[in-house]
Amino acid sequence: MPGLLLRDGRPWGTGGRADILVSDGVVAGLGPGLDAGDAEVVDLGGRLVLPGLVEAHCHLDKTLYGGPWRPHSAGPALADRIADERVRRAELGLPDPARVSALLEAMAAAGTTHVRTHTDVYSGIPGVRTAGAPVGAAGTGLTGVEVVRDVAARLAGRITVEQVAFPQSGILTNPGTAALLEEAIKLGVSAVGGIDPAGMDRDPVRHLDVVFGLAERHGVRIDLHLHDPGSLGVFELELITERTRAAGLAGRVTVSHAYALGQADAATQDRLAAGLAEAGITITTAAVFDFPVPPVKKLREAGVNVACGHDDIRDLWSPYGSGDLLERAMHLAYRSTFRRDEDIELALEAVTYGGARALGLAGYGLTEGAPADLVVVDAETPAHAVVTRPPRDLVVKAGHIVSRTDALSRPPAR
Amino acid sequence: MPGLLLRDGRPWGTGGRADILVSDGVVAGLGPGLDAGDAEVVDLGGRLVLPGLVEAHCHLDKTLYGGPWRPHSAGPALADRIADERVRRAELGLPDPARVSALLEAMAAAGTTHVRTHTDVYSGIPGVRTAGAPVGAAGTGLTGVEVVRDVAARLAGRITVEQVAFPQSGILTNPGTAALLEEAIKLGVSAVGGIDPAGMDRDPVRHLDVVFGLAERHGVRIDLHLHDPGSLGVFELELITERTRAAGLAGRVTVSHAYALGQADAATQDRLAAGLAEAGITITTAAVFDFPVPPVKKLREAGVNVACGHDDIRDLWSPYGSGDLLERAMHLAYRSTFRRDEDIELALEAVTYGGARALGLAGYGLTEGAPADLVVVDAETPAHAVVTRPPRDLVVKAGHIVSRTDALSRPPAR
Repeated sequence: MPGLLLRDGRPWGTGGRADILVSDGVVAGLGPGLDAGDAEVVDLGGRLVLPGLVEAHCHLDKTLYGGPWRPHSAGPALADRIADERVRRAELGLPDPARVSALLEAMAAAGTTHVRTHTDVYSGIPGVRTAGAPVGAAGTGLTGVEVVRDVAARLAGRITVEQVAFPQSGILTNPGTAALLEEAIKLGVSAVGGIDPAGMDRDPVRHLDVVFGLAERHGVRIDLHLHDPGSLGVFELELITERTRAAGLAGRVTVSHAYALGQADAATQDRLAAGLAEAGITITTAAVFDFPVPPVKKLREAGVNVACGHDDIRDLWSPYGSGDLLERAMHLAYRSTFRRDEDIELALEAVTYGGARALGLAGYGLTEGAPADLVVVDAETPAHAVVTRPPRDLVVKAGHIVSRTDALSRPPAR
Repeated sequence: MPGLLLRDGRPWGTGGRADILVSDGVVAGLGPGLDAGDAEVVDLGGRLVLPGLVEAHCHLDKTLYGGPWRPHSAGPALADRIADERVRRAELGLPDPARVSALLEAMAAAGTTHVRTHTDVYSGIPGVRTAGAPVGAAGTGLTGVEVVRDVAARLAGRITVEQVAFPQSGILTNPGTAALLEEAIKLGVSAVGGIDPAGMDRDPVRHLDVVFGLAERHGVRIDLHLHDPGSLGVFELELITERTRAAGLAGRVTVSHAYALGQADAATQDRLAAGLAEAGITITTAAVFDFPVPPVKKLREAGVNVACGHDDIRDLWSPYGSGDLLERAMHLAYRSTFRRDEDIELALEAVTYGGARALGLAGYGLTEGAPADLVVVDAETPAHAVVTRPPRDLVVKAGHIVSRTDALSRPPAR
């Protein structure tokens, strides 16, 4: 197929202007004055070029995106939200392929080229349980995994989706879930999830036994939700660190949220960061609501990979969220009180390179030979793009144009 | 002049659809099926109508809005930012009428009809001082007050601006500033400000003596910056409450930021809220960065008025901010972990009725006889408008159309 020559862009990190030649889905050339040959030429007019954005944590299967406004219906406690969701999923027809598709389309148009989504996988509830869900509420089975898989397959050329099998209602406290997680892995999910091994599932070591056991047996990655606060959460981070190191799973384990890391004193943060870096564990944050945000700058300085995602987007857990990762990066930078450009860029790194490392994307970036996934914005600096979240003037995925704005035919405003 | 008939809107708070007849700058009629007479008719197609948004706390004189991107140049401490600003103001030509004007235009187009801005008023520094500013740095004199006044006068039909004379560099620790504040009042500012009476100005009682003395002598309002944390901030809130009650200034005193109120334990919050309500003090929050947000729901339940503004917008203190008050309300709702519609509406109330009460706007609201200041958005509910921050399809100020989008000629999307 004829390629694409993006003329006169400013690729993030290269410090200057360059043309980008795209051919056969990869960056075939990067530098000034490239020969277009028979490639289609798009003039970027000096606009900023970022690598494709990487959504490292969301819940596509839960979303109501693109449908009518649904006022939040749950009570204030976590158990209220879990119970509300278990009741209303069926009423609202969730997971809804139309809603999943609408959200993925919005994400793609906003420059996201890769998504990791946590899909609920839990069994029905035969009797009384602790999490507040109604007795006898139906489990998800593998429906969510199949729905997300099928929608993602239809959009495969525009956005790449990988799933984490997520035991939203616990593993040990929701018997049958471990077997379902294993079935989800056989269906092709790329990671196994977990949730508050102590606070929710009441037995941190056995919870991690199941999660790490599945990961080791099947060669999938791990991405655990950890909301547990304070010293309990710190203890669990230590357990996960020790186990990751022992299992030799460097680069294959992510802890999402990790509120305890944001709450800890500086000395504890330093100690945890050193352990996480050595073990090769990613911390993924969504900077949601008023919950503690992990110390992004300190983590990066210690060598810990940091990724970022939305968490819930317009669902029964949260009415907020747009799918726009530059907006999410803004929230992360803002909650981190990042003012200087080089600090704000850490938030942008989290929704690009940090996410790519968490997902293990091969060859990601703005270099020759890399997959041609990129997004073009009218911004003076990368930090400026985070602060103002300008329209995505051009989005390219695997060498194909996913979306473009009319603005591209005009000189940039800035 | 011929009036304006807004056909088929959904005014917030009325629970149904209504026409709004605007004549001579006020709402002359509100109800179904109004007769247009010779008025221009604009069909709202069932869109949501909000009263004009009220920006209760910003710093127009500092802004770089609309100019080139200026990477943040100050060090991490408060003293660094104060010193950086004192050096760079002259270099950047601040206050810059073009920048002030650009920001006010953006605010007006985003539906803001009233603005309270804190304008720096401080004297030069003859010798060494405590706040980290360079020795001998120039004071602002009354330049900022005059620049903002002149720009505001040019935009008077589109947006109303009132100023607080703000002693950014202290009053007691910056001799000559008290006299400048008094001159600013004579120039027409509507309120006198203060800043961290203890933490910055080192003598809370004498600081409040000056501020309350000026307010009582000249009949202006008070709006104090209070960043002081913990028990120190709580003590200052008590001092301000006692003094407001003693002076009979109910409805005329605002405390901005009040981080200590967000940090306090629940019992202390309850006690402070009762006192603030009885004294008639407004709490204005901007929900900036990771700083503590006052407990909005608790304050409202106790009867305390709550307003909201941006604080810094694209200036030497913060590179963030857009001037869009629906976005600011989103930040406030989000940091307050408001999920339910009725809670999210409290954030919307803060950027409308709460701000109007803080500024003492007469007759504000969507009722017959009120000034015709309103904004129309395509949203299903007020909470939906906060979450999605849709374009402002129509903005009316004092009966005149300030801006409108093409979307108004089409049916609403939602």
